[in-house]
Amino acid sequence: MEKIYEGKTKTVYSLENGNVLLKFKDDCTGKDGVFDPGENTVGLTIEGIGKANLETSIHFFEILKKEGVKTHYVSADIDNATMEVLPAKVFGKGLEVICRLKATGSFIRRYGDYIADGTVLEGGYVEATLKDDAKGDPLITSEGLAALGIMSQEMFNSMKEQTLKITKIVAADLAKMGLDLYDIKFEFGYNNDEVILIDEIASGNMRVYKDGKYVDPITLTSIILGK
Amino acid sequence: MEKIYEGKTKTVYSLENGNVLLKFKDDCTGKDGVFDPGENTVGLTIEGIGKANLETSIHFFEILKKEGVKTHYVSADIDNATMEVLPAKVFGKGLEVICRLKATGSFIRRYGDYIADGTVLEGGYVEATLKDDAKGDPLITSEGLAALGIMSQEMFNSMKEQTLKITKIVAADLAKMGLDLYDIKFEFGYNNDEVILIDEIASGNMRVYKDGKYVDPITLTSIILGK
Repeated sequence: MEKIYEGKTKTVYSLENGNVLLKFKDDCTGKDGVFDPGENTVGLTIEGIGKANLETSIHFFEILKKEGVKTHYVSADIDNATMEVLPAKVFGKGLEVICRLKATGSFIRRYGDYIADGTVLEGGYVEATLKDDAKGDPLITSEGLAALGIMSQEMFNSMKEQTLKITKIVAADLAKMGLDLYDIKFEFGYNNDEVILIDEIASGNMRVYKDGKYVDPITLTSIILGK
Repeated sequence: MEKIYEGKTKTVYSLENGNVLLKFKDDCTGKDGVFDPGENTVGLTIEGIGKANLETSIHFFEILKKEGVKTHYVSADIDNATMEVLPAKVFGKGLEVICRLKATGSFIRRYGDYIADGTVLEGGYVEATLKDDAKGDPLITSEGLAALGIMSQEMFNSMKEQTLKITKIVAADLAKMGLDLYDIKFEFGYNNDEVILIDEIASGNMRVYKDGKYVDPITLTSIILGK
């Protein structure tokens, strides 16, 4: 097993069977010692958060598997905080795909002249941003992704369709716990001519409300895991 | 003839035949007395610039007419600096459509990690921004336009196709004068179930180079009009 990448919150190893092992770390993104999944730098270490994010991810990846959605998820070893996944090539230097069910955050900062905070986006709205800390993760259109050679229009359509489907499944599961999913962030990769969901599905990737109040990621994880 | 709108650089009147009359003013957008088509406020008055912009627009609208591209253009009266156009409803509170043939400006500020300034965007790249001075004219995707109820995906596709076609025609005409079109900004409107090009096609709407050097709008107008 060979280390191939050291990320902010995960270490990535290649396995002999051709798959990849993700080791979830206890390092979190944040600022001034406060956990903030929106930050781009590691700001603190929270003991056990790596395993908690892994367990949350397994929770959702298993549901997706049952629903017949192919992702990079193969299996997991919670004790060692590792997840075995299919190898995948990321798009460009990393692409984030956001699905919004209710308008808030940067969507309102951009389009607040047209829509009120909290408005339902009927059917879900999907957008992509480039991972680029210095440029503030700029929004990019499907035309832009094609122009930059990052992704064809066909791949984008597949990614958009999967994003809508996966978001609906996650939202339905959260709804059973009385939780209201506003938006969620995914990463996709390219595996054997197929666009598939990669990375994690953890509390830091989603904005969730309960009884009209925002639920922070630590609380959300404990609700999802029931502990 | 009734005044229906007083814009920054044009006054709009309704005509008895159902059409609309645009009166080109000598007011220009700019800052501190310097003409800058990228600015959103009227900064100065240049005698004759209204007529010059009208003549430039007629130049291109007439070429488009010959090429069979339907626009809002009906006829013009240069002496009175007016253009008769078809009535059209703007999208949302105003939408700008940019076609880029070479990557520069805000495209590089956003995506400079992926592409060098001046790179040819093969086939042309089309993007839309909302007119919103306070929010810095934010980029919006076709999905965003649909989510905000501004424009359907079908209308966007028609607008994109027309934008590529019109840009190629304008670029070919400029090329005959030894000019290299980098990007151009359009406005579209909705007329009788059709998306059509509206507003003007003037030097301030395009970024043009000659022998590798940027040509300012005033110089560009005099080259296009041959005077």
